[in-house]
Amino acid sequence: MSDLGLFDVMYSTRAMRRLKSDPVAPDLLLQVLEAGTQAASGQNTQPWSFIVVSDEKDKSFLATHYRDVMNKQFSDYRPKIEDQSKGARSMRAAWYLSDNLHNVPVLLLVCGVRDWPFSVPEKDRIGKAPPSYGSVYPCIQNILLACRALGLGATLTTLHQLFESELQEYFAIPNEYGVVAMIPIGYPKGHFGPVHRKPAQTVSYLNRWGNNFPS
Amino acid sequence: MSDLGLFDVMYSTRAMRRLKSDPVAPDLLLQVLEAGTQAASGQNTQPWSFIVVSDEKDKSFLATHYRDVMNKQFSDYRPKIEDQSKGARSMRAAWYLSDNLHNVPVLLLVCGVRDWPFSVPEKDRIGKAPPSYGSVYPCIQNILLACRALGLGATLTTLHQLFESELQEYFAIPNEYGVVAMIPIGYPKGHFGPVHRKPAQTVSYLNRWGNNFPS
Repeated sequence: MSDLGLFDVMYSTRAMRRLKSDPVAPDLLLQVLEAGTQAASGQNTQPWSFIVVSDEKDKSFLATHYRDVMNKQFSDYRPKIEDQSKGARSMRAAWYLSDNLHNVPVLLLVCGVRDWPFSVPEKDRIGKAPPSYGSVYPCIQNILLACRALGLGATLTTLHQLFESELQEYFAIPNEYGVVAMIPIGYPKGHFGPVHRKPAQTVSYLNRWGNNFPS
Repeated sequence: MSDLGLFDVMYSTRAMRRLKSDPVAPDLLLQVLEAGTQAASGQNTQPWSFIVVSDEKDKSFLATHYRDVMNKQFSDYRPKIEDQSKGARSMRAAWYLSDNLHNVPVLLLVCGVRDWPFSVPEKDRIGKAPPSYGSVYPCIQNILLACRALGLGATLTTLHQLFESELQEYFAIPNEYGVVAMIPIGYPKGHFGPVHRKPAQTVSYLNRWGNNFPS
């Protein structure tokens, strides 16, 4: 198993949205999923399940619904070709992903047991507030990092939330689980990292919001 | 910078709840926070901020409220001394953390811009549904992994959600941010990993819920 250094991996894990259609070996995917399952979860409940979608017809189902949502929600956000700002390049990559989703070798559905934060009383849960999935996201981040370490491109998407009921029915997902993320996975056309982020000091405080850290 | 392999780190990052009171150097913490900020987020919004709480009085504020919540919500779950089941040991560690929270050198508050899943319409957001913080949890997982790689014990806690308004006021946190997690950080009394998880195959499916993966 490849084992790049943790920090090297974290510093070069970008959202990779331009992916080759070459297949990904099931064994490699299983390594990725196993890495996901190593994450800690409240009371070690391990509230996740995975659906590896690689069949052409099933990928088309996802791709068609995804594109519908992109067109409905974001058609005003197709950046002009001359716009080379960071925002425009990121948006263009999002459209590229949407337009080519059916060609991505694997669309991974990460499912999670529907849960709620402590702050939401029992009576305000099912049907009233969306689940938090706080115990599933650490598993998702492990998956994204493991993909990077194994040379696979991936990106966390959540637009499927807008066609959730069709999705649940199509993939026969039990009601106690929701689909937390759809992660397209494949070998990248581009290169990994470096990522562009604000320096940590600019968002870190000591003891009170607004106090410099380190002091 | 220490750079243990990614998989070695992921396979040995347990929730560490028994921590020494020895101080943690600010430079080391900054490495941890910087690792957090490398995470991807929707449109690269980087919607996180951190408050490093190390002052005695401020830690006591958090510890007192945390213990109140533990006592109110979980007093029925103090396991008997002879109970050596995994669940009992985990619960005992949670009580240990609660009883000793004021002695942990750093209580890290990870704040996040309040957001909602696409599935929650604008009108049902503020004051009605809790934010999802889906773009903050990947940063949190990076923090937990970075702690492990640097020899620091840490664990994700969310009980503070039950005293959120007092917390926001005390630490002067602007309303557009919520506290997503409180992460106690310190040098561990025990040892890292291995973690105990169900095999990935038992929670992985191919194309439909219920179909074996790998096939």
